[in-house]
Amino acid sequence: MAEDWLELEKKAREWTYEAANLVKESLANPIHIESKSNPNDLVTEVDRAIESFFFHKIQNEYPEHFFLGEEGIADELESLGGTVWIIDPIDGTMNFVHQKYNFSISVAIYHESQGMVGLVYDVMNDELFHAVRGHGAYLNNEEFLPVKERPLHESIIGLNAKWLVQEKNAYRNPLRALVRDVRSIRSYGSAALEIAYVAADRLDGYISVNLSPWDYAAGLVLLEEVGCKASTFRGEPLDFMKPSTVIVGKPQLHKEMVSSYVGEEL
Amino acid sequence: MAEDWLELEKKAREWTYEAANLVKESLANPIHIESKSNPNDLVTEVDRAIESFFFHKIQNEYPEHFFLGEEGIADELESLGGTVWIIDPIDGTMNFVHQKYNFSISVAIYHESQGMVGLVYDVMNDELFHAVRGHGAYLNNEEFLPVKERPLHESIIGLNAKWLVQEKNAYRNPLRALVRDVRSIRSYGSAALEIAYVAADRLDGYISVNLSPWDYAAGLVLLEEVGCKASTFRGEPLDFMKPSTVIVGKPQLHKEMVSSYVGEEL
Repeated sequence: MAEDWLELEKKAREWTYEAANLVKESLANPIHIESKSNPNDLVTEVDRAIESFFFHKIQNEYPEHFFLGEEGIADELESLGGTVWIIDPIDGTMNFVHQKYNFSISVAIYHESQGMVGLVYDVMNDELFHAVRGHGAYLNNEEFLPVKERPLHESIIGLNAKWLVQEKNAYRNPLRALVRDVRSIRSYGSAALEIAYVAADRLDGYISVNLSPWDYAAGLVLLEEVGCKASTFRGEPLDFMKPSTVIVGKPQLHKEMVSSYVGEEL
Repeated sequence: MAEDWLELEKKAREWTYEAANLVKESLANPIHIESKSNPNDLVTEVDRAIESFFFHKIQNEYPEHFFLGEEGIADELESLGGTVWIIDPIDGTMNFVHQKYNFSISVAIYHESQGMVGLVYDVMNDELFHAVRGHGAYLNNEEFLPVKERPLHESIIGLNAKWLVQEKNAYRNPLRALVRDVRSIRSYGSAALEIAYVAADRLDGYISVNLSPWDYAAGLVLLEEVGCKASTFRGEPLDFMKPSTVIVGKPQLHKEMVSSYVGEEL
């Protein structure tokens, strides 16, 4: 049976707003914080509660759908076959913990590996970036204009300065060269939001040395609607089954960044 | 005659909101952009119009007050004697031009070199950070809590990655070491806002290799109210008569960043 993607987006939007209210309520109480892969990779019981909220809603309403989430509540998937919800309950957990600000809920629905619905919700600023494949991308009720290309030396790129100083980072030097050549750098601390900012024309590109599918799945649906590009540093399509490098941008800029800077590991 | 600083803050706030409306109206039309000291140092006719708006309001209402602004509408000052308004009509002009978002209006009133009133207004997010000396610091109507110190390795610092890659920057290596050692880096593109974020506990510190008084004058009043510190990289007080390095932070963190990282030019 063919899904009604506009209907599914409505449902996803409703749940996202509900989840956001839960997150805001949680900010009134002290938050218990743990580390994951390293001391700066944070998770809280709120991340888990929100993922669980989505998981149970989806299981209940769409039992035939699959689920891929940052906190690993569902069984692991081996492909994006069928209809899959890809969810980051709180993208930018460090901001959530330190700032109580500038974090997002990221919800995507993919069908047979194709992004159909994408929502990135900046909870505290009440900015919902959303798109349904073929129906344009929006910030709240405003449709995005087609993105304007700028030359690389006038571009603003989202990139965390940490990537420029890590001894073991094979891309340190190419990224330094890129930072030198562009107009300026921003860093907001939520990959999902920063990718949405590219679609919304607040950034010209965004780069990360290491992202997981829940970080970019929703953002990619937004990008597609405005003709922006996303790939690994080598220019290959993103593989939703494992973490990878990610480079996102307006089409010409994306091409130039891949071909002249990060396309080959040094 | 002693000034009534609470009364002056009310007036400053009123004019800031008026100016913000003018800025928002200007976004409906194409903006004419020029470069100043270098191709990435941007100015628009909106910056000039807003500075002029404040200058004439102040001249009219407080003819005995002095004026120091980014766009140089008033005569140059040789000291902060008397009562001086220090104004950045649009801090983050690059964001204003590229993003139409994440820029601020910064208004400070100093008296005999002492910061008495400070306002930093994030126009598009409707966040007014404001303080009157001795009366606490606020975000809109909410008073800031005392800032929490965190160890350096758990701190989030505001810093533009550009400072890490410029060949001629004498502080490049100390800043790289600092970026390596802290928890993470953010960069929002408006110094006035980023300093306000330190006071508001969204960042633990903020660093710039080159700022002018209108970038930090209002922020310093906010910082003072919550016990945060600001200085040049060498730990000296900021000199409002010329551009300088600026390092801002919670007291222990500020001390450690100065003594262990940027205190001596390398």
